[in-house]
Formats: sequence, structure tokens, C-alpha cells
Amino acid sequence: MQKFKVTFLPDNKTVLAEKDKTILSAAISAGVYINSVCGGDGVCGRCKVILKKGQVSQQLNGIITEEERKNNIYLACLTNIHSDLEVEIPESSRLIFDNPNSVGIGERLRDLYSKAEDIQPVEPKLKEGLFKHSPFATKIYLELPAPTLSDSISDLERIYRALRTYEDFPVIQTGLFNIRQLGELLRDSEWKVTLTLGKRNDTVEIVLVEPGNTTDKNFGFCFDIGTTTISGQLVDLNSKQVLGTKATYNQQATFGNDVITRIVYAGQSDGLEKLHEAVCNTMNQIIRELVQENKIDLNDVNCIVCSGNTTMIHLLLSVDPGHIRKEPYVPTANFLPVLRAAEAGININPRGLLSCVPGVSSYVGGDTTAGVLSSGIYQNDKLCILIDIGTNGEIVLGNKDFLVACAASAGPAFEGSGITSGMRASNGAIQKVSINKADFEVGYSTIGDKKPKGICGSGYIDLLSSMLEAGIIDKGGKIKTEGKRIRQTATGKEFIVCFKHESDSLSDIVITEADIENLKRSKAAIFSATAILVKHLGLSFSEIHKIFIAGGFGTYLDIERAIGIGLLPDLSRSKFAFIGNSALAGANQILLSNQAMAMANTLASKITYFELSVDPGYMDEYGQALFFPHTDLTKFPSVRF
Amino acid sequence: MQKFKVTFLPDNKTVLAEKDKTILSAAISAGVYINSVCGGDGVCGRCKVILKKGQVSQQLNGIITEEERKNNIYLACLTNIHSDLEVEIPESSRLIFDNPNSVGIGERLRDLYSKAEDIQPVEPKLKEGLFKHSPFATKIYLELPAPTLSDSISDLERIYRALRTYEDFPVIQTGLFNIRQLGELLRDSEWKVTLTLGKRNDTVEIVLVEPGNTTDKNFGFCFDIGTTTISGQLVDLNSKQVLGTKATYNQQATFGNDVITRIVYAGQSDGLEKLHEAVCNTMNQIIRELVQENKIDLNDVNCIVCSGNTTMIHLLLSVDPGHIRKEPYVPTANFLPVLRAAEAGININPRGLLSCVPGVSSYVGGDTTAGVLSSGIYQNDKLCILIDIGTNGEIVLGNKDFLVACAASAGPAFEGSGITSGMRASNGAIQKVSINKADFEVGYSTIGDKKPKGICGSGYIDLLSSMLEAGIIDKGGKIKTEGKRIRQTATGKEFIVCFKHESDSLSDIVITEADIENLKRSKAAIFSATAILVKHLGLSFSEIHKIFIAGGFGTYLDIERAIGIGLLPDLSRSKFAFIGNSALAGANQILLSNQAMAMANTLASKITYFELSVDPGYMDEYGQALFFPHTDLTKFPSVRF
Repeated sequence: MQKFKVTFLPDNKTVLAEKDKTILSAAISAGVYINSVCGGDGVCGRCKVILKKGQVSQQLNGIITEEERKNNIYLACLTNIHSDLEVEIPESSRLIFDNPNSVGIGERLRDLYSKAEDIQPVEPKLKEGLFKHSPFATKIYLELPAPTLSDSISDLERIYRALRTYEDFPVIQTGLFNIRQLGELLRDSEWKVTLTLGKRNDTVEIVLVEPGNTTDKNFGFCFDIGTTTISGQLVDLNSKQVLGTKATYNQQATFGNDVITRIVYAGQSDGLEKLHEAVCNTMNQIIRELVQENKIDLNDVNCIVCSGNTTMIHLLLSVDPGHIRKEPYVPTANFLPVLRAAEAGININPRGLLSCVPGVSSYVGGDTTAGVLSSGIYQNDKLCILIDIGTNGEIVLGNKDFLVACAASAGPAFEGSGITSGMRASNGAIQKVSINKADFEVGYSTIGDKKPKGICGSGYIDLLSSMLEAGIIDKGGKIKTEGKRIRQTATGKEFIVCFKHESDSLSDIVITEADIENLKRSKAAIFSATAILVKHLGLSFSEIHKIFIAGGFGTYLDIERAIGIGLLPDLSRSKFAFIGNSALAGANQILLSNQAMAMANTLASKITYFELSVDPGYMDEYGQALFFPHTDLTKFPSVRF
Repeated sequence: MQKFKVTFLPDNKTVLAEKDKTILSAAISAGVYINSVCGGDGVCGRCKVILKKGQVSQQLNGIITEEERKNNIYLACLTNIHSDLEVEIPESSRLIFDNPNSVGIGERLRDLYSKAEDIQPVEPKLKEGLFKHSPFATKIYLELPAPTLSDSISDLERIYRALRTYEDFPVIQTGLFNIRQLGELLRDSEWKVTLTLGKRNDTVEIVLVEPGNTTDKNFGFCFDIGTTTISGQLVDLNSKQVLGTKATYNQQATFGNDVITRIVYAGQSDGLEKLHEAVCNTMNQIIRELVQENKIDLNDVNCIVCSGNTTMIHLLLSVDPGHIRKEPYVPTANFLPVLRAAEAGININPRGLLSCVPGVSSYVGGDTTAGVLSSGIYQNDKLCILIDIGTNGEIVLGNKDFLVACAASAGPAFEGSGITSGMRASNGAIQKVSINKADFEVGYSTIGDKKPKGICGSGYIDLLSSMLEAGIIDKGGKIKTEGKRIRQTATGKEFIVCFKHESDSLSDIVITEADIENLKRSKAAIFSATAILVKHLGLSFSEIHKIFIAGGFGTYLDIERAIGIGLLPDLSRSKFAFIGNSALAGANQILLSNQAMAMANTLASKITYFELSVDPGYMDEYGQALFFPHTDLTKFPSVRF
């Protein structure tokens, strides 16, 4: 097959690509980010590129105008390579959000392929010792008696015999890999060995046999695989200590912003493979960085627990998620067997195990199960709600007797994606904002007290609430005043939160009317889903004892202001608790305790799924929530702007 | 790496071999048989070849004489390839036994690489319905309800739910392979699928999911992997019917005649790999032939149960057997996990499972466990003995309360190997012999009533006994008379059993004095081991209720004559039962019943190993048994020659 060099500007990255492949596929191979919301269908028109040199052929579909054609603008997904090429990716095609005219954001989005960032997760307030410490992978050091003529059981049975003095494991399994090296290994190590035991589908597997005592080196990872953001945590399985937590954007974002686009993309030739590769790359990057920073040998990482929505878990395991979006919306599996991480393409110890937190249904996944687990709402006598704010928002209502969950497609706005100056809750993100009503001057604080780089979800909640309070925006979200921080652009007005010179950003940190619209839709989706779920169960908000708020908001979330914008219902503030990334926290518990793993299985079976879209009141409720705080102000009696 | 063409004559097979590789290794690659008892150490001098063309280098070690060197004779194992070669393998190097002067045997031994032969196994008389029919692999046909909005559990849980209506399986496992194809497969087959379930270490694995109802196609193999002979049986797992049984020489014989030589060879570079390959080739050949003859798709063979001595099982799984021959003689494993057959290099359905019958110790393997199982001695109230006559003879004494086993290195004589006119118990083998005392004329009958090709184990027993009776040989085994059937050769006398013209052999079918010596040592090893075991337990033969004789003797064994030569103790003939290949029969039971599998595990734990060589009386007993029937004739009161 003939191959051509394709060079992408301004990154100046070159890749060899086969003749007739699309420019978009070459860019993905090169690790160069080109926006593509539709996943390469040629529909969204986001992947426009400028051809500087070379020959191509293109399928025309009306998205490229006559004028653009004259200017050598092509859709990367519909343009085939016919010679060596030089392709410039304009700023607009480097963005994954609505306003391509903003400046200085391209370089931030490149961090789809850049370093993962440290995050400080909020630990849910767990009862100490709720689950017994019995990690997914355990190491046991054995000093075996050397065989004699009178004690000549085989090497493998010698190990089993010693193991059973520790615990009466019903089924112990091991593979040929270990058996093949056992004879030499036991004798070379003078019968002193360390076994790594893994829990595998109600059996115990000897994952690894190592010479000598290596029990002090036993590490694991837990992950929350979100549609937009992937967070990973390195844990010392002996001390239970979290050694580091990092998050980065899911590289799958290249193939579309939400699960539906990803599922469609997975159905295309090579689509599943590319999505699988993207999630693996992202996870492997977090693993590599945390392992290097903590000076840990990758081979001492023995297991990994993944929570994620059902589509993400299917893609992680290269299982076609196609049926998730087709009625009656059935996934291939909610409960997945424990695998070797290597089978899924994840780089830890080659024998290391990977477990996925079981999910409930196509749209309520293991991340929700993990959230229910870590929030503890399943133990509560009284009614609780768990609201997990993410690209897929999930809401669970229940107590120790029952649990009902629904999902709301909220979009990635509160994760700082699809928003002009949005960023993840990491160092330099503005997370608190106040605005002086008199002169609209802005006070803010950032995560890590660094110079501001952008705004994270909790910052946007503060910002919107402050803008409402200061009268900068109206209840519909339109900027209604003037001032030195308010600027008119081609697509509407924007408010400057932080000027470029005060910031660590290449441009002013702003919020545009389009951003506000985006955030408003997100908060409306979450609020209306919660309200419909409560109504569906014949309850009212006043009967709710506690509301747990989860999501990637960093260390801080101002409940007062979240109510102020109508994201959360107007209840006594003491009823709310912000618990951070509850899916990651649940995965952490499962990583550290077999009892938590068993409880997750129980919970996933127990949680009932409620399909929001079949409720006749949902669209109405959503429409009413498209105001700050709400069309019906009687629902927010304590909010006064 | 430079490669040269090496052509082997008279087969005229050519293979590419790397420079500096030995001629022996090239021959093995070419599938050309060259004798090598020492396994390539350059010690045994059996692998002499004649160099017809080409350049070589050789290590000299005194085995090749000056004259041989002049005649271009080299040791294949010590001669390195330096150019394209033409190598002739003389008849003498095509033999694996002691008398290289016999003629016409080369072509028979080539069947190390030729067709496996049908054998008619003697079925042990089993109590009907002893074990419930529950084969190692079971097929279940499911007509699943299609998912609906109100019954939207995932595809995998739908299958689990349906399965659990059949049986309350505690742990069901399956792999990514099945999960990845599940979504499409279930829908394409309109929710009608057949599951193949395999028993795997106390769990149940969904081995395979197939569209439609394929329950009528479920086959398995059982094998007895002997040092000299490998027997395999194709079984319809639904009807329990044996569709065919075949045996062939273990291709490992190229690397030495007994387990010790094989273990030593395994310790050399590539040795383990070659031995592993040889046993796989042999088994795969039997599988392929039986599957083809029965017009069965290899993919419908879902499981395989292997009995074999401990060394054979190690080699099958590529586990180094090195420690078996080093004090304190400990194998890597007696109880092996269930594997995928493909992991061991065995070609059945790629997902199919392989189970090894658990062994007792380094020298009493799973073949003995299987023999105890099929003979039923473990259920008997009274004392029984099981004597399995093979290259490794195993003797078990016990009843329902206890079982003690020992092993005797008997050599391959009774398997027809290492003996001038020896052959396996297959069509054309002389298995009954009578000699007219007056003129020494020989009457015989063959298996399948074919023209005789050679003599099998039971034929040799008859023959020796008849020769003793007729006064042709003395009690030491020397031919003491003259006659037209008695011939003097360079190495001693030989007796012509069947002239070439009456036979289907390229030469006269004979028994030489060397053969008689060989057979005498074999029978002495078996008898003395049995006697010592009885004595060790403080018993006498008269206290034994029943003696089961097992081994690859075809359909017939004359107990009277076996006692007559002193192979078996002189007890009431009614106490003896010939049960054929008990190891294969046990493997068959395990293949067909999970209960038999569980019983095999119990038995392997229950049988006590007795190390014969530590008994001070053993060598003495062995020495006394080196006569026909025995030095001490009071032990054989009923024998009168």
C-alpha cells in the first residue's frame, strides 16, 4: 500500500498515512487533535483544515462553501490523501465547543494529549472501618518448608497447603505461566516467596509468584472513566494511602462529545478499535505519570478497578456498545468478569487484574454504583439523593430499602469542556468568584492559589450566581449591562472574568452568552431530572433528608450559589453535602476491600433504573428549568436576586 | 543467520537448517526419525549417519572409529552443518532397540511419524451408572426471551439468568472473547443459542456461545499419554459412545526410551520445547485422524482429559520436569488447573478445555489414578491389586480403606518397543501363540485376523511360555535347542515365529535371545515390585482377593501363561481380571462425568506413594525374578514345565 507523509501545522507533526485514508485518520495517528463532534460522518463541519501543499480528493456534501473551497479549506473527515501533504489546522478546528471565535484556547485543548493534572479529590466522609481491609490484590509472604523424602508433595500443592493455613480459600486458581516457572523459582529463592493473590469472580487466583519478600510493594489503581474526563488514583494497597490522583480529558473526545456520538462512531469500521485505543492511551498516561512520580515499578501495580458509565466500560473492553442506543437499550454486560488488565490494553503488571464496577443499565453505569457505595445512601434509614454532575448526570434516590436511578444528558459544561475558558478542576482553575455590584470588579480564588488559567465547574456556579446577583445577566442568561468588563463580539456579549495580563492564560478569561446558555442547559437537565425522579416516586423535595452532590468540582462547591442558579433544589443548606468524585471514591473502596466489591455487586442488582424520557412531564420540567433559577420562582423561595 | 538445505535419504526429505545446527536437530525439524537414546549427548552412538555430500564440522569423542570416519560416518548429534548436505540414515540408526542387525524393522519404526492405528480397548467391567452422566463439556440450548423495555437486563445477565434456571451454578465465568461477540450473535440468532459449558476448577465456564441449536455436536477426547505409546479415544459426549480409539508411538521416543532420559533432555536448551512439541504432534495426529474418519468438525471437539505419568504431563504442559529426578523427587504439580487445550498446543476447538487427571507423586501419575478409578479397587471391601504393565509399571494395593502405590521401571518391551519384532497391540499383531512340542511348529492368531506384522505384548507372553513349555529355552531364557526355526546370528540365537513369506512383514518375525533378556527384565521388574509392595504392607499374596491387570495388550491376555513366565504371582486364576488400558478407561469416565472427576481428585490425595528403591529387599527380589518363572519355584507351585 502506497504511503504518504502528512505534516500537520502549526504542531509540525508528520505521520505516514496510506493513500486514500482521510486527513482526520492521519491526524489521529499523529496524535494531533482535530475537532470532530460527529465522529467523522462529515455532518458537523468542525474538522475544517487548510491544505497548504499536496493532492487530495474530497467528497462534497455542501458544508464547505464555494469561498472556502477557493481558500483550500477541506473537511478533514471527507478528504482523502493522494500525495504528501501539508495541512494546517486552524484554531477553529482545534476547539470542541460552540464558539470558534474565542482566542487562546487551542493550546489548552491540546492537553487532550498533554500531561495529566494532579487533582485533590474530596473524600466522602466514610465511616472508618466500614469495609474490612482486603484489597483486590493481596500479597502473602511464605517461608515454605523445603521438600523432603517424607514430605514430597508437589511444588504447587506445597504453596496451596501453606495458603490454606492463612485462609480457607474455597477455589484457588493459577495459570500455566506461574506453574512453568515454579520449580526453578522456589529453589532459587530457597522456598521463600511472595504470592500475589487476586480476587477473580468468587475464586482466588495466584496472580504472581515472586522470589523473596516483596509484600511491601503492592499497588493498585482506581479509575473513574468519564465521557469527558478520566480520573485515576494510585493507591498503596498495604497502607490504603492514596499516593496521587490525576485527571485528564478522555482522548475519545476527538470522536465526539457524548456517549451517543461515540457509540455511532464505534459502529464504523475501526471505530471501536480507535475508541478503545483512546481510552487506553488516556488511562495508561495517568498510570505512567503517577507511577513515575512516585518512583514505583509498573510491575508492582497488581490490579485496577474501573468505574465508568456503561458505554465507557464497553469501549474499554472493546465490546461493541451499539445496542445501548437501540431500543430496548440493552448493553452487552453490566456485570463483567475480572480480566487481566493486559487483555483490555492497560499497562500494569502483565498478570495484573482489572475489575469493572458493575453497572445498572445502559445509561446508569458502574460510576453510579460506585457513587452509591461511597456516598453511603444505601445504608440510610431516611430518603437521600445522590446527584452526580457530569457529561452524563446521574441521579439516585433512595435509602436502605430501595434505590431508583435516572440519567440526564447534561453535557460537559460543568467539567470545563465545551466552554470558552473552561478547564478541569486542577491547579490554576478559578473555583470561587465574587463580583462587586458597584463596579463589577471580580474577586476570585484558584485551586492551588496559582495564577488563573481558566474556570472550572464550581467557578462557573459562583460566577453565574454572582453575575445574577450583580445584575449583569438577566434570568434568561443574557448579559444586560455595559462596563469595561463587558465586550461585544461577533456572536454576542462576553464578560471578562480575568484579564490576560493577570492570568496564566494566553487570552482573557471570559464567559460568553453562548457559555451561559450551555451552562443553563446543563443545570436545567440536572435539576429537571432530579425533580421528575422525586415526582415519579410520589415524593416532594421536602421529604428528602440529605442530598449528596458529586462531580469533578475540585475541592470546593458553594451549595448556596448552586441553589442560586437553580442547579440544586431550594432546601435547607444543611441537607447538602458535597462529596467530590464519588465514582472514584467508590472504586477506591472496592480496590481496598473485597467486602466493598461484594456490596457493589449487591447494589448494582438492587438499583432500579427509571427511564426519564418516558415520563410525560420531563420536557416541560426541563423547559421551566431553562431560567435562573427557574421559571416558577415559588420553587426557589429563598433565592433573592 | 545463514541457512542450508539438508536432504535426508532414503526418505528424500529436505529441510532448511541454520549453519552450525546439528544434523540431528535438522532431522527432527524435517520429521525424519533418527535413533537417539541419550537424547543427543553423543553418548549412545545410535545416531550414526552417512554423509553423502557437503561440509560439516564434528566434535570427536571416540565413538566413531577410524574406519567409520573413512566411510563418512558421523554422529548426527555431534555434527554441525556447514553447507548444503545430503545425509543417508542407515537402517541401524532407524532402530530404537538393542539389536541393530535385524532387518526389515526400519520401516515399522517409521510409524513414529506414520498413521495412528485403531485399537480395540478392553472395557473394564464397570457398574452401570456408577457416575452420573455430566460430561466435562456440556451443551445447553437456550431460547431466550428477547429484551423489552420492561425486561432490559444485559445480554450476558440474560444468559446467566436462563442458565440458573437449569442448575444453581455457584460461579459462572466467561471470557472477553464471548462477551465481545455476544451482542451481534444473540440478535442474529434471534435469541436462540447453544452454550458450551465447561467445568473449570470448581467453577463453570461458558466456553462458547453458538447460534442455533448445536447440542447434538458435542465431542471430547480422552488420552493416555504413555512414555512409549499414546492412546486417544474420541467420545460422543451426549451418547457416551466411543467413536474410535487409536494408538501410536509417542514421538518423544526420538529423545530417549524412558522418562529419565527425557527429563535429562528437557534440561537442555530447547529440549523442553522439542519434547513438548513431540507429544503435541502425536496427540494432534490421533485427534486429526479420528475426527476425519468420523467426519466430525474439529471445532465440535470441546474438551479433552489426559491421563499420563507425571513426567508426560509436565512435558505436555511445557513444565520443566527436572526436579522429578532430583532428590527428594518432587514434581512441579500433581494437581493441574484446567486449561484451554490451545495453551498446551492441542488442536481442538480453540476455546476447548483440557484437564489432566491428578497424579500422586513424581513416579505415580494420573494414569495410575485413572486406573484405580476405572478398576474400581477403591470401592472394594477386600484387598485388591492393580498392575499396570507399561514402560513405567505401576502397582497399587488396597481397598476402600487405603491405597498404596509403587512404580517399577519395566521398560517398553511389553509395549512392543525395543524388541526385534515387537509392535503395538493393533491389527496384524500376533497375540496368541502355541508351539508344537514335537516339531516346534508355531500356531498363532493375530489381532483382526490379519497377516502377521509383528508380535505384541500378550503375544510375547504366550510365546515365552510356549517356548519354555516346548523346551526351546531354559529357565534363564537361553535358546537351548536346534531346529529349522532356530537360527544363529552374530549376537546370539533367534527363534523364527513366522517366516517372512507367511507374513506381512519385510523380514521373518523372530524373537532373539536379547529380546528374551529384555522381556525377562521387564517381567522381573513388575513381579518383584508387586511382591515387595505386598511384603511392605505385611501381607502375603494369599490374602489378595483380586488382581487387575492393565496395559496395552490389545483384547487378549492369557493369565495362565503370564503366571507361567513369572510375570504374575501364582494364585487362583479366578482372582485375575484383565482390564486393558485402565488409564484410558479412567480418563473416559472423567470425561463423561464430573463425579468421576471429583473422585479422581479424592483418589489422587488418598493414594500413598511407596518408594520401592528404599526397600532393602528390592534388588534381591528383582534378582530372584530374573528366571522363568522364578528362582524360588515354591513361589510358583502350579507351574510345571
